[in-house]
Amino acid sequence: MEHAIREIEKEVGIEDIISTDAEDLHAHGYSEWSSINLDTLPVAVAYPRTTEHVSTIARICHEHRVPIIPYSGGSSLEGNFSAPYGGISVDFAYMNQILEFNKEDMDIVVQPSIGWQDLNEKLAKMESGLFFPIDPGPSAKIGGMIGTNCSGTNAVRYGTMKDWVINLTVVLADGRIIKTRRRPRKSSAGYNLNSLFVGSEGTLGLVTEATVKLAVVPEQYSVAVVTFPTIRNAAAAAAGVMQTGVPIAAMEIMDEVQMKVVNLGGATAPRVWKEAPTLFFKFSGTKEGVREAITRVQKITTANKGGNFEFAQDEREQKLLWSARKESLWSMLSLRKHGQETWSTDVAVPFSRLADIIEVSKKEMDDLGLFASILGHVGDGNFHESIMYNREIPGEREKVETCVKNMVKRALDMEGTCTGEHGIGWGKKESLLWEVGPDTLAVMVALKSSLDPRWVMNPGKIIDVPWLKVQYPGADKAVTPVRRLSE
Amino acid sequence: MEHAIREIEKEVGIEDIISTDAEDLHAHGYSEWSSINLDTLPVAVAYPRTTEHVSTIARICHEHRVPIIPYSGGSSLEGNFSAPYGGISVDFAYMNQILEFNKEDMDIVVQPSIGWQDLNEKLAKMESGLFFPIDPGPSAKIGGMIGTNCSGTNAVRYGTMKDWVINLTVVLADGRIIKTRRRPRKSSAGYNLNSLFVGSEGTLGLVTEATVKLAVVPEQYSVAVVTFPTIRNAAAAAAGVMQTGVPIAAMEIMDEVQMKVVNLGGATAPRVWKEAPTLFFKFSGTKEGVREAITRVQKITTANKGGNFEFAQDEREQKLLWSARKESLWSMLSLRKHGQETWSTDVAVPFSRLADIIEVSKKEMDDLGLFASILGHVGDGNFHESIMYNREIPGEREKVETCVKNMVKRALDMEGTCTGEHGIGWGKKESLLWEVGPDTLAVMVALKSSLDPRWVMNPGKIIDVPWLKVQYPGADKAVTPVRRLSE
Repeated sequence: MEHAIREIEKEVGIEDIISTDAEDLHAHGYSEWSSINLDTLPVAVAYPRTTEHVSTIARICHEHRVPIIPYSGGSSLEGNFSAPYGGISVDFAYMNQILEFNKEDMDIVVQPSIGWQDLNEKLAKMESGLFFPIDPGPSAKIGGMIGTNCSGTNAVRYGTMKDWVINLTVVLADGRIIKTRRRPRKSSAGYNLNSLFVGSEGTLGLVTEATVKLAVVPEQYSVAVVTFPTIRNAAAAAAGVMQTGVPIAAMEIMDEVQMKVVNLGGATAPRVWKEAPTLFFKFSGTKEGVREAITRVQKITTANKGGNFEFAQDEREQKLLWSARKESLWSMLSLRKHGQETWSTDVAVPFSRLADIIEVSKKEMDDLGLFASILGHVGDGNFHESIMYNREIPGEREKVETCVKNMVKRALDMEGTCTGEHGIGWGKKESLLWEVGPDTLAVMVALKSSLDPRWVMNPGKIIDVPWLKVQYPGADKAVTPVRRLSE
Repeated sequence: MEHAIREIEKEVGIEDIISTDAEDLHAHGYSEWSSINLDTLPVAVAYPRTTEHVSTIARICHEHRVPIIPYSGGSSLEGNFSAPYGGISVDFAYMNQILEFNKEDMDIVVQPSIGWQDLNEKLAKMESGLFFPIDPGPSAKIGGMIGTNCSGTNAVRYGTMKDWVINLTVVLADGRIIKTRRRPRKSSAGYNLNSLFVGSEGTLGLVTEATVKLAVVPEQYSVAVVTFPTIRNAAAAAAGVMQTGVPIAAMEIMDEVQMKVVNLGGATAPRVWKEAPTLFFKFSGTKEGVREAITRVQKITTANKGGNFEFAQDEREQKLLWSARKESLWSMLSLRKHGQETWSTDVAVPFSRLADIIEVSKKEMDDLGLFASILGHVGDGNFHESIMYNREIPGEREKVETCVKNMVKRALDMEGTCTGEHGIGWGKKESLLWEVGPDTLAVMVALKSSLDPRWVMNPGKIIDVPWLKVQYPGADKAVTPVRRLSE
């Protein structure tokens, strides 16, 4: 390990390319926002400046069988950047630039550590008329967004991360650099490597550059809020909107607890929201188009007992309102008292089942006396549960864990998925196995092994391989050769 | 080989599961519409009725190292279903049913041999208000559409095949049956196997079931046609439409030759179209939305010297007009005289380069005295060239081949792709290598080898592996073990 670090320093020729500072290690192996934290930390943090640096790091780590863990925004929630086997965390902090902007083609080439909000601010400053529409947590960066195939509130209109990637530059496990494709918006040439690397959480390679599509900034936005007597009414209204194809820019559900959290957080003060199941709508398009969509949505919500169709009164309020939604996890975190933690997780189901799963999951948490809020991207059948617990009260964390597992099992019983946008990371490996079963997991193992036969790329994430034993430095595991599927 | 056939018949227990009828073999190994035809044919055609039959066929073929080639609509253009090494063509003709319709969730589970037009007719008959928006050639079927990640005129609005697949049931090389995921519209759980199998042309597994998303049928359609003095003006207008984000349902470019072909074909008689570079627009949405989009598009086309903004006058004319576009390849084929053939191929470029590549490619063909038409999905930067030639005139086919290769090279020089929607098949393997280079191709080889180590799944398509020698029955090739990347 020490040897690998010295070799990297020597080959790259930049003195501070590697840090072993204790705080640095902690910052790269521990997440305050997540309940999936391990006792281990990375042994070092590398700060590459170029794709070639990353290639050198990978090659040397591969040679010495040292784990490599990519790091960008650090906002993931399932221990996606944790370091179960030590190794080197590769922080792309210095690789945060726009490399090429093809305005006419509506695409842009960026490095992994540019944040999506930062990217959008730059596009606005350039008066490009374009924006990048994928909107996960505010601090997320492109690299991690690719890793988890993230999405956010705009997904119902714009899809998820995979839909916006034109090409990727990827450093493979052994240091080889590949580009998935050139710059066409559409291609049927060979295997779709973009979609394979997107969502692979750094387990197949390290993304060092991405060309992403951009969308045209709509002429007009509007934000509206409607409350309902029950979650079921709100979900029925949302289904109605989807099934009639009304063009909405976003449609979010928040339960009465989450509305309370917004009020307590004070982000939209002095406005105080009714603490009831609520749908947030974002409309975008031309003036006329927005007006028409609003009329149609109002008709649907009214038919489902929705009341108080309220608009944000101006752009400021629109922004506040929407940011209250975007920062709901932060609001929840800010309510923590001494010893309290928040477990935040997501599942997705076919949207006809959304009300069912939310109702049962809420009841289970209520019965256990847990403070928990629910909010969701209702048009995608995707929702988040944030559960507060006190780690100092014996058994409380276990109660939460059981709740989360039950929610995952319920989602799977309803033909859903254990995660709509957060990814598997360390936290949901068992859930993934439940979800796809051993044969499909074996396909993933085969793919992983074919691109990373030594399992050095973010090991322990997405898949644990029971029959695979790899010798990581410092860990007491022996190597056995990786077997391929169907041989 | 003979042994494998007998074993399949015995295990499946249906007498006509396998055909070795000469006409049948010809129909499954030769395409009248394509210029990519080989001298070889499959040795047998299998007609499975269930996923389990397909599994049995795969397992036995795998055991005996017999190639397996999936077949559904047979409308692909790059020799995608040809049989370079003999083997068994698996025709899904009996697997053409809707298995489950989840109206509330707006998805449907289908077998591979249902045609997209047939599916849409059934959805219309059920008065579901839903449709499947991917529209390749009229005779294409879901299985093949998945194989090539096809698209069509609707792609500019609705994306390509990969964007509509929720899950797939896949029979792997060794007969194992997997399901890629359950039924959520969105997921970040593990590797994106949907997008890996979509576009893999049957080289990684055989798709036996697919759950696909459906879209809401728009309230209103309108179709309009605008002519331009030059292709460059037409392309500039199209770029303007994209860059201002006017919502269009489709936007197609046809050159003066293709317009002539439409007139000669007579599909829209008595209407005769001006033989000039032309943009076809399809608008959809609400009445108001369509009207607004048309006004905005008219402004843009006028600014780019577009004239004669003409509407289809009623639904009948709309359909005729659009079907003239959809059946352009057929129109071209119908003009063939004795000895003539049509070479039809596609490339895609970043759309700012579309006019450049069309102009140069047209000039090259004109200079060579070839009759060729161009039409394209201009919003995706994707276009098709159909070149007529006489195979009886010495050297003429070679001229066409050179034209096609030059067009591919030009597309790649402009950061494009060698195929936007037809796939690689047998015909574009060299182009794929030019496009992605040896290291990226090595990744594809590694993935292929990991799921199909004996290379029995549609061998010779997408990738030829120079160092791989597999013993196919009847072929004079020796087996060497498949090597994995980066070991």
